[in-house]
Amino acid sequence: MLYIIGLGLGNEKDITLRGLEAVKRCHKVYIEAYTSLLSFGLSSHGLSTLEELYGKSVTLADREMVEEKADDILSEARGSDVGFLVVGDPFGATTHTDLVVRAKKLGVEVEVVHNASVMNAVGICGLQLYRYGETVSIPFFTETWRPDSFYEKIQRNRKLGLHTLCLLDIRVKEPTLESLCRGKKQYEPPRYMTISNAVEQLLEVEQKHGEFAYNEETTCVGFARLGSEDQMVVAGSMRQLLTVDFGGPLHCIVIVGETHPLEEEMLVFYTIEGGNPTQTP
Amino acid sequence: MLYIIGLGLGNEKDITLRGLEAVKRCHKVYIEAYTSLLSFGLSSHGLSTLEELYGKSVTLADREMVEEKADDILSEARGSDVGFLVVGDPFGATTHTDLVVRAKKLGVEVEVVHNASVMNAVGICGLQLYRYGETVSIPFFTETWRPDSFYEKIQRNRKLGLHTLCLLDIRVKEPTLESLCRGKKQYEPPRYMTISNAVEQLLEVEQKHGEFAYNEETTCVGFARLGSEDQMVVAGSMRQLLTVDFGGPLHCIVIVGETHPLEEEMLVFYTIEGGNPTQTP
Repeated sequence: MLYIIGLGLGNEKDITLRGLEAVKRCHKVYIEAYTSLLSFGLSSHGLSTLEELYGKSVTLADREMVEEKADDILSEARGSDVGFLVVGDPFGATTHTDLVVRAKKLGVEVEVVHNASVMNAVGICGLQLYRYGETVSIPFFTETWRPDSFYEKIQRNRKLGLHTLCLLDIRVKEPTLESLCRGKKQYEPPRYMTISNAVEQLLEVEQKHGEFAYNEETTCVGFARLGSEDQMVVAGSMRQLLTVDFGGPLHCIVIVGETHPLEEEMLVFYTIEGGNPTQTP
Repeated sequence: MLYIIGLGLGNEKDITLRGLEAVKRCHKVYIEAYTSLLSFGLSSHGLSTLEELYGKSVTLADREMVEEKADDILSEARGSDVGFLVVGDPFGATTHTDLVVRAKKLGVEVEVVHNASVMNAVGICGLQLYRYGETVSIPFFTETWRPDSFYEKIQRNRKLGLHTLCLLDIRVKEPTLESLCRGKKQYEPPRYMTISNAVEQLLEVEQKHGEFAYNEETTCVGFARLGSEDQMVVAGSMRQLLTVDFGGPLHCIVIVGETHPLEEEMLVFYTIEGGNPTQTP
């Protein structure tokens, strides 16, 4: 059996009892390192908090390992219980659908243990989840690569009065240009897009298109380390959010659409001008 | 401190360690009964599984109680730790924003413990969460009240190739017509919309509007008791889903938009014609 277990958003205590029981049953436990473990208070060599809680060792599975050794992991799971741990929900912002498909094709049974993900935890700011349009991803711009397909989606959502969740780019284990040329594996240091970085890119793209999808006065909500004990949630205009120090990763933004009175009442608690933007709800 | 604690979707074991620790700290614990506790394997007088796990008694708080006695609950939370338990995530399909707003206005501190909700757990069928448009609710039609504002939203999502999550109506503690006339409180038995009920209503509305937003050949995914051990996930046309017995509540449907190859590969495992629609992922 392959257990794909969501760990939630904060730290080791966000696992569910069902998830913990499954981990304890497993002979071998992997943790995915696609997305940031940093946000989880973990570094790649700092899995000991988890290992202590589980009473067993945990193997870090980075993208390469999952892609290259998926069949090994899955054949282990054919004969015994194997756990694959995922920050957030297994089917949240990052997909593990591919692993499930491979498992099912090999006849390996799969059980999923759900948990919170960014997709529902943003609800904490008071904007109703059923009033969100399509989610967008904002990639790091480079000198030569500035893709802006998110603009049209945000514009569409805003025309309909819907909120837009913007997931911000994460670059982990990107090979250096040099290593690509030499065929030798060396990696760039990890990069996590900040809210101010994202807002700058958003405003640049608005300026380029000039279709008034949003502007620097548009209300947004910035989230840092959502679901952690030191999470930060601040509502304000794009211009205001540029001036806020949100601290470490992960960050995301919601561009606010039309609001109902209850949504507005709740947002006030997080608003910069409404006094002190709160850290916790 | 008021702790608003998500319980997840399945049973008492879906609480997180963080949530369980918070419950254990609380002097008084309420559980909301807005949405169905049935889906949670609980009846209104069957909270004993939870009480055993928590080592304390749990008070069922129905809609009336929360509306009428919110101030009492909140003033308890001013002087001691009070827990308010919610099936799913505190800000998932059902909103508890109002309680948070009231608490904050009274100066009561609030801490939220997130968990899985329907909004992210539907990811299990393989359709990517960032490819969903606006979520819709489908209300029970009556002889005289057949609101269909969901039609336009579904149509819009489908034109954009997006998936649509349809949340199905729940009627719990609805006063009987007789009791409304007599001013005496008597309630209708609880009702939960089934998938076939929803599909019938969807097709009726399509027939009325005739704008080809969808038809009985449109692919959907039906979910029953999502996140529970006996969950059922079946993909098929609306016509096919009409013939499936999904069993007890809660049900919901996703109307499938344009699909990517990986989404299609995953849907096959749940497809009626693909063999046996699976119970678990």
